[in-house]
Amino acid sequence: MFLRNAWYVAAEGREVGRTLLHRRLLDEPVLLYRGEDGAPVALADRCCHRHAPLSKGLLEGDRVRCGYHGFLYEPSGVCVEIPDRDRIPPGARVRSYPVCEREDWIWIWMGDPARADASLVPTYYTNRPGRWKSVPGYLPVASSYLLLVDNLLDLSHVSFVHANTIGSRDDKNPELVWDRGDRWVRGTRTVRGMAPSPRQMQDGADFPIDQTKIMTYTAPADVFIDIWTREASVPAGQAMRHDTTQLILDFLTPETATTAHYFWSNVRNYKLDDDAYSTYVDRLMVRAFEEDRAMLEAQQANSDPRLPMIDVVGDSGSLQARRLLDRLIAEEQRLASAAA
Amino acid sequence: MFLRNAWYVAAEGREVGRTLLHRRLLDEPVLLYRGEDGAPVALADRCCHRHAPLSKGLLEGDRVRCGYHGFLYEPSGVCVEIPDRDRIPPGARVRSYPVCEREDWIWIWMGDPARADASLVPTYYTNRPGRWKSVPGYLPVASSYLLLVDNLLDLSHVSFVHANTIGSRDDKNPELVWDRGDRWVRGTRTVRGMAPSPRQMQDGADFPIDQTKIMTYTAPADVFIDIWTREASVPAGQAMRHDTTQLILDFLTPETATTAHYFWSNVRNYKLDDDAYSTYVDRLMVRAFEEDRAMLEAQQANSDPRLPMIDVVGDSGSLQARRLLDRLIAEEQRLASAAA
Amino acid sequence: MFLRNAWYVAAEGREVGRTLLHRRLLDEPVLLYRGEDGAPVALADRCCHRHAPLSKGLLEGDRVRCGYHGFLYEPSGVCVEIPDRDRIPPGARVRSYPVCEREDWIWIWMGDPARADASLVPTYYTNRPGRWKSVPGYLPVASSYLLLVDNLLDLSHVSFVHANTIGSRDDKNPELVWDRGDRWVRGTRTVRGMAPSPRQMQDGADFPIDQTKIMTYTAPADVFIDIWTREASVPAGQAMRHDTTQLILDFLTPETATTAHYFWSNVRNYKLDDDAYSTYVDRLMVRAFEEDRAMLEAQQANSDPRLPMIDVVGDSGSLQARRLLDRLIAEEQRLASAAA
Repeated sequence: MFLRNAWYVAAEGREVGRTLLHRRLLDEPVLLYRGEDGAPVALADRCCHRHAPLSKGLLEGDRVRCGYHGFLYEPSGVCVEIPDRDRIPPGARVRSYPVCEREDWIWIWMGDPARADASLVPTYYTNRPGRWKSVPGYLPVASSYLLLVDNLLDLSHVSFVHANTIGSRDDKNPELVWDRGDRWVRGTRTVRGMAPSPRQMQDGADFPIDQTKIMTYTAPADVFIDIWTREASVPAGQAMRHDTTQLILDFLTPETATTAHYFWSNVRNYKLDDDAYSTYVDRLMVRAFEEDRAMLEAQQANSDPRLPMIDVVGDSGSLQARRLLDRLIAEEQRLASAAA
Repeated sequence: MFLRNAWYVAAEGREVGRTLLHRRLLDEPVLLYRGEDGAPVALADRCCHRHAPLSKGLLEGDRVRCGYHGFLYEPSGVCVEIPDRDRIPPGARVRSYPVCEREDWIWIWMGDPARADASLVPTYYTNRPGRWKSVPGYLPVASSYLLLVDNLLDLSHVSFVHANTIGSRDDKNPELVWDRGDRWVRGTRTVRGMAPSPRQMQDGADFPIDQTKIMTYTAPADVFIDIWTREASVPAGQAMRHDTTQLILDFLTPETATTAHYFWSNVRNYKLDDDAYSTYVDRLMVRAFEEDRAMLEAQQANSDPRLPMIDVVGDSGSLQARRLLDRLIAEEQRLASAAA
Repeated sequence: MFLRNAWYVAAEGREVGRTLLHRRLLDEPVLLYRGEDGAPVALADRCCHRHAPLSKGLLEGDRVRCGYHGFLYEPSGVCVEIPDRDRIPPGARVRSYPVCEREDWIWIWMGDPARADASLVPTYYTNRPGRWKSVPGYLPVASSYLLLVDNLLDLSHVSFVHANTIGSRDDKNPELVWDRGDRWVRGTRTVRGMAPSPRQMQDGADFPIDQTKIMTYTAPADVFIDIWTREASVPAGQAMRHDTTQLILDFLTPETATTAHYFWSNVRNYKLDDDAYSTYVDRLMVRAFEEDRAMLEAQQANSDPRLPMIDVVGDSGSLQARRLLDRLIAEEQRLASAAA
């Protein structure tokens, strides 16, 4: 059971073009492409005739033609041509999903199209003061998207899972407080005087640092982490040898109940034009998220829903996030039942 | 649910010999081999003792010995020897299926053996006037055999799926009429003045052609397509530069509910002794049916039985075929219930 | 449904050390390692926190730390540390299984720990008079462990499955008698004057032999075969050119309902210090048990529980073993219900 009236990331913008991209989202087959003007299109990837995937067909201008018997569809999902002079029956159409491109991603709305409000698609760095460099990435993960949300809201894993990449073994015993709103949960996590991670050393910080991470979960599937890293123990008002901000954007779109698409970007406010550094960041993040993937897939395979889990204080954020999402799904279901 | 009282193709004749061939048919494991006189034998491929597959055993003359504990079976399925002086218990036997060899295939009857009538096994080209050259082939397909039947009864797919092999992009807007009998459905499809396909050009037809295809579905799993190709617009009684007949025989035996064995032959009445041409035809047909296979397997995986399908006029033949088959299966089930 | 109050082989002793070994046993994930003093430890391989496998963590002395969020466990299964100053909640522990090392194996008790009695772990050759050389081996098998028990209690398969390795085509028509006790079934099987097997010829026996095999099944999962091979037709009291004893130890631990761990050893009382011969035996047994594996996996895949099996006299031992085990499982279930 997924929350449907919500924006999910369907793809990186750079993945979608004038070839047909199939992607399973919320357990539905979706076709993604761009029209001749570059605008993204998302259709149900299942011909209304005999259920062949449209992604095995061909683009004709803004339209897509099924590769099996040649049904031709508009971006609206309406079938406008059936070969051999066949009349087009009423109902010959596929679902068209509202889509919206923001920053590095194409977002999709898989619920009631009437409720899709493009103004609610978030932007994370382009409307933020200052200059920013975004390094996006993608991995498919054989675990529920919820395990990815848990992962990102309990950063105590970083010093264990990522000790050799983005974590510091010293990243422990934080000050950590949570607050929340109607559709979000936020944690503010500070660790002072810790040893730098491999990346921070690469950045020149070969001395103790203070780090504050603000993790914001927004239902159903976004986790935004704002990381402020600075030289430790520098009195207010005095110059620091290190002071950087990284934004880690994580979009965790369900593929099925037990698999997910992990989209991310590592956004920074320094070394903006240093391409070699961007390549370093790209590879580092892939390596780090491969570490998460290995753990999450093992966890998914090893989980036994009949057995209890022990909750500790560190789970506070993810437990609140789960409750929030459960409430939103229950409300949506109630609404749908009432409407029917 | 399969129709059981019917002849299905079990194998090409050339596949079956003095080694043991396992094949799953109608979701049952079947062992195929030839006796010393060359006659084909089909037994349940499951020893009555501990269910080991007999196909992992050895032939001893006309008999097969289980490779696990050495039970020895006659072609009738009766167990005639058990090692270590064990008495042969009543009921020590495996099912023997009636089989019958015709043209290039071995046919099997998986229903009530008392109803198996070898005179009902069809012949398609050997009893037809004139000389014919048959080029048979085989592919396993991960889709229901019913999707293969649909495929062959809606030839509007040819200009899309097979544009680069056996189809012409021009093969559209046919005259098409259907008639039917008790166990068959037949369509007569004519297209006039169309551009030749790659094969027809290979045959020397580099001018417009007329083509009539007569597709006959015989329940449960045969589709016979008689294709008459000739130079277009030649007045009656005048000489033609091109006039050929191809018979496409398609036998679509269920392996399981969602997988099938696709046996075919391309039979022609020209270039009879041209082996290089036969090789060309063999490769062309494999290539074309690989195109079908890719589409059918994608369709099978993508089909959602909870969702509607839109029917158009082009589906007329396959819808009639499905109804016919459903009726025959229902009758067979009724008979079986009445007998029980 | 497995018998739980019993000792099963979990691993060869040589497999378990200071790295973390995951093994699925009785359909539960188990972690195996040795403490600093060399004593084996078996824990449920599933962190009590979020179900990550502990086997992806790290050893710290005798303790294991989860690689995800760093929970630290004692060999007793008690969690003794949770990072970030979290309190350790009551119930933060994983199951610890009694283990016991004997001869070449580590045995595990997956039932009620209070009933685990190390004195009941069997020894097969170390407490037997004389000197013995053990050559252990292991194969995972995609069949129920019960099919392996059947296999070992019906040695009529040897002349068919193993004709080219450890069997003689002549190994037929034995004298065979069965007796049984509360938890065991035993067959004594003698064949006289048979041609030697490839291995016996390697041992110098190029003349007819007599062979007695005593197969003892002990519930739930051990089959011990004591093989006495000697020159045939030698009058009592006269010197023999060949007289050897082999002990084949077979431990058949369920991995899941349909897969098993096959542990064995071939133990002999001759050529004790001949390493080249031990290597020969090692390879021969692997080859022979690969022959069993191929048959058993085919049998498992081909078995249809809706269809009957025909039992013959040769199945006497395995049928008694199955009944015995069914009775023990039923008793255990009854006890568990009564306790609950």
